[in-house]
Amino acid sequence: MNDTQITLTGWIGGPVTLRDLGDGRQVASFRVACTPSRFRDGEWVKGATSWHTVKAWNQLARHLSQSLASGDPVVVHGRLVADVWEREGRPQTSFEVVASAVGHDLTHGTATFAKDAPVEPRVEQPQVAPAAEQVAA
Amino acid sequence: MNDTQITLTGWIGGPVTLRDLGDGRQVASFRVACTPSRFRDGEWVKGATSWHTVKAWNQLARHLSQSLASGDPVVVHGRLVADVWEREGRPQTSFEVVASAVGHDLTHGTATFAKDAPVEPRVEQPQVAPAAEQVAA
Amino acid sequence: MNDTQITLTGWIGGPVTLRDLGDGRQVASFRVACTPSRFRDGEWVKGATSWHTVKAWNQLARHLSQSLASGDPVVVHGRLVADVWEREGRPQTSFEVVASAVGHDLTHGTATFAKDAPVEPRVEQPQVAPAAEQVAA
Amino acid sequence: MNDTQITLTGWIGGPVTLRDLGDGRQVASFRVACTPSRFRDGEWVKGATSWHTVKAWNQLARHLSQSLASGDPVVVHGRLVADVWEREGRPQTSFEVVASAVGHDLTHGTATFAKDAPVEPRVEQPQVAPAAEQVAA
Repeated sequence: MNDTQITLTGWIGGPVTLRDLGDGRQVASFRVACTPSRFRDGEWVKGATSWHTVKAWNQLARHLSQSLASGDPVVVHGRLVADVWEREGRPQTSFEVVASAVGHDLTHGTATFAKDAPVEPRVEQPQVAPAAEQVAA
Repeated sequence: MNDTQITLTGWIGGPVTLRDLGDGRQVASFRVACTPSRFRDGEWVKGATSWHTVKAWNQLARHLSQSLASGDPVVVHGRLVADVWEREGRPQTSFEVVASAVGHDLTHGTATFAKDAPVEPRVEQPQVAPAAEQVAA
Repeated sequence: MNDTQITLTGWIGGPVTLRDLGDGRQVASFRVACTPSRFRDGEWVKGATSWHTVKAWNQLARHLSQSLASGDPVVVHGRLVADVWEREGRPQTSFEVVASAVGHDLTHGTATFAKDAPVEPRVEQPQVAPAAEQVAA
Repeated sequence: MNDTQITLTGWIGGPVTLRDLGDGRQVASFRVACTPSRFRDGEWVKGATSWHTVKAWNQLARHLSQSLASGDPVVVHGRLVADVWEREGRPQTSFEVVASAVGHDLTHGTATFAKDAPVEPRVEQPQVAPAAEQVAA
């Protein structure tokens, strides 16, 4: 099966918008600047900055609009998709990352987390880890 | 160049420990439970839970020990490495993810972020995003 | 949904085994050595080698057993899973990468590809790319 | 450090071009169609096809131009970068994947591999794997 898994780390530039589609779905959108470093001629140099558009849906979208702000560092995991549209009769392509998981990148600061009210049973959450010596073997 | 890039999402089980190595370095360690869902015979079923050990160093380590707690959902990006050691004369291998970025997975809740005090210039942080219509084209 | 996406590049060490489970399924297994380089104190140094176990199923498994040999460089994409079992009454954990895509890493050589005989219609294969100037915009 | 790691699997559409920059460097370029499947309303449906541009440099570029053809399935690992340029006075952005590893995706066929002539010592290649029972523990 074809796939386009991407993980990006960078900084939010601009607002985080939340749009309600009126059919029970919401979509959040924001832009992330990624400035990778490269080692060249004996030292680390900053490369060119790439701007990426990130979208998220529904529950994740609502949480992002309440948690993220311009200037925040983030880690984003999802799929890269191309969106094709027309402008002045010519096909145009926008690339965006459809996120399945997003968090503040704690490399650059600390965060306080608050779980959603448990409207749904959170069955996937483990209660306790097996002891370390059992699993390290 | 050989590489082992991994991104995992799951739930922290157990404490997040921070160890000071006494030479200016710190290392944080915690365990994450991942329970993927699979589509089989017409429905989504939960697969077996895998437990993974995550380590992080220095600044990221300090922030994680202040931000993460057992039961938190996380997104972790890093490299998978094998650590070989001996027990009762037999070689043993532990696998661990050495994290380069970690955040709360905002799929499951909201977070309030606080940047580090700016001891270092934060040069890589963009000031403002280019306008959307400039870059969507 | 919890996930453990991994991409690794390395060298096959040892045989590629193919096992028929007798119920129409086959599983291939092989081991990959990954030796990442790190930049430390002004130069690139080879890090420790990590050995990873890779498994693949059915059609991919059959193709791998016909295509791969010890010493080949590979790129592997899949999920990291923990397999828990017992030895002498103690729980043991093995980690393995369940591959969804595997290829020779063409960084280190060339390859000649032969498609499977078309038992199934290959609907997902595109016939022709849109012109470059249409999509680069 | 900011990063944009991506792994994509898809089908090559169109030619694989190799360009010599005249300064000892070569760059290969080709386009890949990715058509992910999604599970919706009780069945797998093909999503929209995304076209991605892939670039590779030097040794990898030369090997790709000798190994890949339109219609081949591939697995590509690398970084997503945005390339900004002007057209008719307006800034335009193209996204491309700068590949660090590329191979035929052996999900769809078999491949015969030929190593490069050993102009350089291949130090990173392991000679033999540790026995399975030593490392599985």
